[in-house]
Amino acid sequence: MTHTDTIVAMATPAGAGAIAVLRLSGSDAINIASTIFTSVSGKELAKQKTHTVHLGNIKDGERVIDEALITIFKNPNSYTGEDVVEISCHGSNYIQQEIMQLCLRKGCRMAQAGEFTLRAFLNGKMDLSQAEAVADLIASDSAASHQLAIQQMRGGFSSEIKKLREELLNFASLIELELDFAEEDVEFANREEFQKLISKITHVLKRLIDSFAIGNVLKNGIPVAIVGEPNVGKSTLLNVLLNEERAIVSDIAGTTRDTIEDEITIGGISFRFIDTAGIRETVDVIEGLGIKKTFEKIEAAQVVIYLFDAEKFQVSGSKFQDEIETIKNKYPLKNLVIVANKVDKLSEKEIKNLQSAISNLQLLSAKTNQGVEELQNKLLEFVNTGALRNNETIVTNSRHYDAMLKALKEIIKVQQGIDSGLSGDLLAIDIRQALYYFGEITGEISNDELLGNIFANFCIGK
Amino acid sequence: MTHTDTIVAMATPAGAGAIAVLRLSGSDAINIASTIFTSVSGKELAKQKTHTVHLGNIKDGERVIDEALITIFKNPNSYTGEDVVEISCHGSNYIQQEIMQLCLRKGCRMAQAGEFTLRAFLNGKMDLSQAEAVADLIASDSAASHQLAIQQMRGGFSSEIKKLREELLNFASLIELELDFAEEDVEFANREEFQKLISKITHVLKRLIDSFAIGNVLKNGIPVAIVGEPNVGKSTLLNVLLNEERAIVSDIAGTTRDTIEDEITIGGISFRFIDTAGIRETVDVIEGLGIKKTFEKIEAAQVVIYLFDAEKFQVSGSKFQDEIETIKNKYPLKNLVIVANKVDKLSEKEIKNLQSAISNLQLLSAKTNQGVEELQNKLLEFVNTGALRNNETIVTNSRHYDAMLKALKEIIKVQQGIDSGLSGDLLAIDIRQALYYFGEITGEISNDELLGNIFANFCIGK
Repeated sequence: MTHTDTIVAMATPAGAGAIAVLRLSGSDAINIASTIFTSVSGKELAKQKTHTVHLGNIKDGERVIDEALITIFKNPNSYTGEDVVEISCHGSNYIQQEIMQLCLRKGCRMAQAGEFTLRAFLNGKMDLSQAEAVADLIASDSAASHQLAIQQMRGGFSSEIKKLREELLNFASLIELELDFAEEDVEFANREEFQKLISKITHVLKRLIDSFAIGNVLKNGIPVAIVGEPNVGKSTLLNVLLNEERAIVSDIAGTTRDTIEDEITIGGISFRFIDTAGIRETVDVIEGLGIKKTFEKIEAAQVVIYLFDAEKFQVSGSKFQDEIETIKNKYPLKNLVIVANKVDKLSEKEIKNLQSAISNLQLLSAKTNQGVEELQNKLLEFVNTGALRNNETIVTNSRHYDAMLKALKEIIKVQQGIDSGLSGDLLAIDIRQALYYFGEITGEISNDELLGNIFANFCIGK
Repeated sequence: MTHTDTIVAMATPAGAGAIAVLRLSGSDAINIASTIFTSVSGKELAKQKTHTVHLGNIKDGERVIDEALITIFKNPNSYTGEDVVEISCHGSNYIQQEIMQLCLRKGCRMAQAGEFTLRAFLNGKMDLSQAEAVADLIASDSAASHQLAIQQMRGGFSSEIKKLREELLNFASLIELELDFAEEDVEFANREEFQKLISKITHVLKRLIDSFAIGNVLKNGIPVAIVGEPNVGKSTLLNVLLNEERAIVSDIAGTTRDTIEDEITIGGISFRFIDTAGIRETVDVIEGLGIKKTFEKIEAAQVVIYLFDAEKFQVSGSKFQDEIETIKNKYPLKNLVIVANKVDKLSEKEIKNLQSAISNLQLLSAKTNQGVEELQNKLLEFVNTGALRNNETIVTNSRHYDAMLKALKEIIKVQQGIDSGLSGDLLAIDIRQALYYFGEITGEISNDELLGNIFANFCIGK
């Protein structure tokens, strides 16, 4: 390990908690910690073993700032691969600030976003796609997004890419070796096996590229537009869909309800519900703009729920049917769910009439909980969770997706070259280009700009 | 240590952070952790030493929930005095919930507010006033409130009380012993020394009781009412007072500006600025209500700032002076600071006129920063920080204050008993009662209701 400056950041969120954790990483981490910490046992920090915890006082000169626990991780056995110190202090903002200021005065530098993980990458503790998965893991808010992130963090994804890259690299070397012996007309690279590898790579890349469509929605949540009149019961619909899964969220003190207001997890899959202003016909200019927005939201959604008040069907039924037809005609391929709300208010005969008027109708009553499970299952039907269940590798990162598209383009060129009997030197150029894009995914090939873009999206302290 | 059920709670605040910490405490803490954790090294958790950290996977059956660090603390060497396990996981709400649910399924119980610290108290790791200081420490948001809390947590306060209690207890025993030898007319308790002790206790109690006035405001912030017309520059005033101390707060990502909107730390002392609607004369009923509220706020404040626009003095000067007189007459003992804002707009002559019209005037210009430091010093003058500087024991807790008032009442009775030559058996009753209140402060005497009240105010996880 080369000498690095020592960075410091809060690793836990600001706010009222019992404890807070500050993290230091770098060549001087343990030395700096020693200057501000006096252990109760009187032992010197620098002489302690890695992965040990010590109780003592954080002091600024003679002034005691806090009683704290300090954990030591010695390089290379730490998250970053450097010497790391974690300070676990009382969760007061004032104390956190004081200790932070003290560390800065003693020679630490405030860490940039993602800098701990960047160092872990640079020190070979993880490859680039694993590092990216760390941010995804922290942001994961459903079983599906969590599974994808942890799979990627544990290297399932990059090991597949790495293996293909190595095999391709091997062939590239053999073909380039042939060039050195051009006059002797030898073939080190078995063309039949090479063709097999290119086919395999094409197949795998296509599968991974295809997986992005589902990976992306699993990671970010499936957008669902709700179309319906005001007061038709949109918020009631969201509330009944919430059920016990959401209740768990609110059990943990401080979880902000607002930020996930419209994001609901059903069966481990996250759905993002987007309210719209409805689509009734109008000559009003401002309302017309609202309807234009509604159509934009429908376009962006993967699923559309048309919600109407069953009680109003006798009066406004034809209007409802017109609107349903409008959506069907405008978006024939969009997944549409038609939901009649408040069916508990209807007689059996009225329900029969409703069902014969509108096919594929979902009956719902927030009051009696009728139809809630059916609606949840209906929503889950639209998600192809097969790949997830089978633990297949799924691409969730648009950077990886881009690199794979580019790699596939090069691999297709290579295939065309083989087919047309292209000379080895020209073939090698396309292979090298494909290898470059493979390397970008796992970080064997990287540059400051690329790394800067990736880690800027991390939180500070990770 | 007797067998206890194992409690679990998040120790860090909810929200987006790099890591989160869950804490388990109880007889089965390490066993339960073992059932959900597989260390990378393959070592068994139960066989590891106290104060060691282990990297591994948190698993629900075969499903990996997270890569996490587990720290083991073995009883009695832990915060609670029981076996404690800390799980440091990635800071995703989803992961925290999953691990929490897993712990609950494996036999943990969700901890109640303050239950970790309650156990620390019950296991003799700290006395009651120290336990209470833990909550104060977490809530501390200024140098002063922090110093008071850490002093109390480190036992400075309770050791003084304990010492007095022990001396008093000693005399109580001697006096009670005399009762057993009543016929022999012996005096085991030296009356002269006893009189000295009672004087000392009276003196100390009075000093501590007096310190509560300052302790309370240092802990909770000094209320300052700002009286002035709308647009006179109240928010500018707060902004200039903020200066660099506040800037530090906003350096830490996620610190909510809103919640401390009107709380400003000056020279380590916290001031709570309370906006008022002004006090101009009116016949309007609704506005009259506003003015009534203004007077209520002035009454509750320790300091009143009367702020006016220096530019408007020529036109509205007599109105300003009327209002100042109103405040002075209504609250002759209230600390009043009269501030002329925007003095940069005035000529030297105009300023002279202003100063001769209003005595003790503070000149302020947010634009040129003139008068900011003077105003800060003026505010600090109203705070008697002597006791704080001298590191004297200061009472900040109203429960302690109440107990001391009661103890003092009993001690005064004892003094009266001595003066009137009361018999030993009656004297002993009053002494026992005083001892009872002393014991309540440090927790030698406690009951479930008392403990319940104290720890209910803690955050969960501490």
